[in-house]
Amino acid sequence: MSGGLTVRAADAADYDRIAPVVDEWWGGRAMIDMLPRLFFVHFADTAFVAEEGTDLAGFLAGFLSQTRPDEAYIHFAGVSPGHRGRGVGRLLYERFFAVARERSRTVVRCVTAPVNERSVAFHRALGFEVDTVAQNYDGRGGDRVLMSRRLA
Amino acid sequence: MSGGLTVRAADAADYDRIAPVVDEWWGGRAMIDMLPRLFFVHFADTAFVAEEGTDLAGFLAGFLSQTRPDEAYIHFAGVSPGHRGRGVGRLLYERFFAVARERSRTVVRCVTAPVNERSVAFHRALGFEVDTVAQNYDGRGGDRVLMSRRLA
Repeated sequence: MSGGLTVRAADAADYDRIAPVVDEWWGGRAMIDMLPRLFFVHFADTAFVAEEGTDLAGFLAGFLSQTRPDEAYIHFAGVSPGHRGRGVGRLLYERFFAVARERSRTVVRCVTAPVNERSVAFHRALGFEVDTVAQNYDGRGGDRVLMSRRLA
Repeated sequence: MSGGLTVRAADAADYDRIAPVVDEWWGGRAMIDMLPRLFFVHFADTAFVAEEGTDLAGFLAGFLSQTRPDEAYIHFAGVSPGHRGRGVGRLLYERFFAVARERSRTVVRCVTAPVNERSVAFHRALGFEVDTVAQNYDGRGGDRVLMSRRLA
């Protein structure tokens, strides 16, 4: 990990930097509809940005489950293509784990696509386990891997 | 409003009834990416379905703002084409207002598209006021009308 890398809580202004690059970071896939601004307005205390100097290196958008008081959820996280392989994702996730622990959450959940083997491997390396693979999870007919990680 | 209309709290199973009809209810627009299952899992206590008998008449997905303790937010609501003009939307919104009040929220916010004049008029009729029109609000370059309603 670069010594110049910092992670801080995000705010609504960060959304204006993140939104224009999301599709590009996902190799041209249309992802932005899944990341409305509300995550940076109403869940800003569990959203984070990683920066190297003034460059946006990555971001994470999550929340504390409203219905399940023991759970936190990571909805969306991405690392700039130019900053991959340097621990940016791990740093963002660990910040989220710390905040979730402070807020008395004992499990973190997330959902990814089984076809995205790099994502599944990334989550396993961070201590997530696969709970199940669900069919037609988010409405477009795609399978999703449901993963969770206990917080000590 | 029909005498046979009921509103109840939603659960994750309701998502499997709602997801297949969302695009159709919006006249074929691709809306489902904006409504992931998480709203019916992690914000189930502020999600509601309206039914007439066993028919799905409408639904609402909202949340209590995590960052702004006075605020609640309505993310997505829809009424079946066959049930429009009968107060289904109002019933769903009023249930949400009641729950938000119980949870000590004093303002409800929502965002809609200025081109959707019917939506803006619906919200005005329910006591919402337009706070601002924001450019490029949700990342695809579209304008959005930001509306809010005080809770008594």
